[in-house]
Amino acid sequence: MKIAIDAMGGDYAPASVIDGTAEALNAYTGFDVVLVGHLEEIKPLLQKHGLDKNPRVQLVHAEQVVNMDESSTTAIRAKKGSSVTVAAGIVGKGDADALVTIGHTGAAVAATMIKMRTLPGVERPAIAVILPSKEGRTVLLDAGANVECSSANLAQFAVMGEIYSKIILGLDSPKIGLMSVGDEDTKGNDMTKEAFKLLSNMPINFIGNVEGCDIFKDRVDVVVCDGFVGNVVLKACEGLSKAVFHWLKKAFTKNPLRIATALLALKPFAELKGMGDQEEYGGAPLLGVNRICIIGHGSSSPKAVKNAIRVAVELVNKNLNEEILKKLQASNAMINVGH
Amino acid sequence: MKIAIDAMGGDYAPASVIDGTAEALNAYTGFDVVLVGHLEEIKPLLQKHGLDKNPRVQLVHAEQVVNMDESSTTAIRAKKGSSVTVAAGIVGKGDADALVTIGHTGAAVAATMIKMRTLPGVERPAIAVILPSKEGRTVLLDAGANVECSSANLAQFAVMGEIYSKIILGLDSPKIGLMSVGDEDTKGNDMTKEAFKLLSNMPINFIGNVEGCDIFKDRVDVVVCDGFVGNVVLKACEGLSKAVFHWLKKAFTKNPLRIATALLALKPFAELKGMGDQEEYGGAPLLGVNRICIIGHGSSSPKAVKNAIRVAVELVNKNLNEEILKKLQASNAMINVGH
Repeated sequence: MKIAIDAMGGDYAPASVIDGTAEALNAYTGFDVVLVGHLEEIKPLLQKHGLDKNPRVQLVHAEQVVNMDESSTTAIRAKKGSSVTVAAGIVGKGDADALVTIGHTGAAVAATMIKMRTLPGVERPAIAVILPSKEGRTVLLDAGANVECSSANLAQFAVMGEIYSKIILGLDSPKIGLMSVGDEDTKGNDMTKEAFKLLSNMPINFIGNVEGCDIFKDRVDVVVCDGFVGNVVLKACEGLSKAVFHWLKKAFTKNPLRIATALLALKPFAELKGMGDQEEYGGAPLLGVNRICIIGHGSSSPKAVKNAIRVAVELVNKNLNEEILKKLQASNAMINVGH
Repeated sequence: MKIAIDAMGGDYAPASVIDGTAEALNAYTGFDVVLVGHLEEIKPLLQKHGLDKNPRVQLVHAEQVVNMDESSTTAIRAKKGSSVTVAAGIVGKGDADALVTIGHTGAAVAATMIKMRTLPGVERPAIAVILPSKEGRTVLLDAGANVECSSANLAQFAVMGEIYSKIILGLDSPKIGLMSVGDEDTKGNDMTKEAFKLLSNMPINFIGNVEGCDIFKDRVDVVVCDGFVGNVVLKACEGLSKAVFHWLKKAFTKNPLRIATALLALKPFAELKGMGDQEEYGGAPLLGVNRICIIGHGSSSPKAVKNAIRVAVELVNKNLNEEILKKLQASNAMINVGH
């Protein structure tokens, strides 16, 4: 198995990507990596970890980088030699089994769509994120690959989310919910009402409409929504988490007694911070494309990069796409009814 | 000035509503109230507060109540004698200046639309909620009155949100943002891209697209979005807040030392909890309707009810609707371009 890694993506690239790749190669076996990036920049970092002589590491030069503040479509069009496009191209040609890229989600989706394309029968791919719930985890998709979705898209997302949660969260029969504005069957907009009908007839454990709060309530395992809603919700929750720690800090630095109390509370506070930690899964897969694509957060640490590689290997090993295709065959006839 | 109060709405009605009304009458002057509800149930509660002989209190009987779990449209259609419909009818006829109702948002919107109707020139009303940001407050609208919106609707929401934030938050020139999936001008779906153009040409302080995280960042004062997105985001943030306190409790009850630390930290924790406290504003206005409508959270305490009445009085006193109409006159010509 070979994992193509975009070495130049993210806020701390290429150092964090190379560090994380070294950690993954040390921790796990059964795969090689193709590091794609500007070789002059990468080589000193490889030497640091002794990766320059590691037979599991192959290097491919890419002249360009998509910067975090560039528009994805123009960047992908203008920079055909960018590390993410070259890496996606390697996977697209079948020379690697998975792509791991950090940072620019839009560029990653665009490069993947062009070079790797969607699985047969899949209309649109979807980004799946894992959020913490009170006592477990909830998968939310689409978190931003598609700003407009049809009900059929959502029905396919449900299948892809089901298979992903089975593999990554180890769930037997994940509860699938449709994001809406109330949990009664009749709630929603025209698109979600149509999706409700499709999902009701599919061979999945569909529990009906769910609300925003249900993401965190352990009531549902997989929540499907269009990528506009999913992206706004994901970012709002990230923003609120940061604000909560801002308010905590403010409340606990008001006077010396409170500062002392906060020092006693460092461990539980660290545990709280760990609840929202996205590093465990290293990134979000773009589900529904040929082979595997994992997109890491721009601020990914080496640990996050290491875990992104681990998840990519796991999704290849556990035949994510074969499972998705099998389940879609049983569902697509229903999904396409009326379309 | 007269405020019509639906005495039967919410999880703790009628007790919490009557208690809150008594508190408001004690705290503030310059208005009377019309309490609408089942008189047999209300009267003993009024006697408790001496409200049965208060000349500022008028009573109107309503035989029916819309329960929290009822579908709004069927409930409003079937229960023409429900407290919320009767109260909205009193305002609609001009016998009161504002409606305060607690609990069933859908029923409140439906009853208000039927009995009070929208302001001339306003296509759709919007629910405006106030969320805490790191150091201030952000107004989000629409939080759920409309599951489908046009770009013109969003442009009108911007005007209504601007006036509301000026009155309630005391802002001079509120920064208005359009909820999207990235802050570049080109980001969004077809509807928001069209709304971006309209907002750019309006006489408001439009700062462009904002993302979900910006609600909490003090970057923007008023965020406009369709009611589906707004409702999902609001409820997701409510759910995450509850989960945070669940995780805090878990982390701080793991062993006796942590429990002791938590006891020392009761005050800062209470301050943190206060950050998300919606009681200060008592409820969310339905902006864009004739006269004033404030919808309180189902779990409203007497304090929240008291503040909802205070806000209703303030919005009447400060001529919310006159200000909205004035600003809409200067904007509607631009908004209606292309529609």
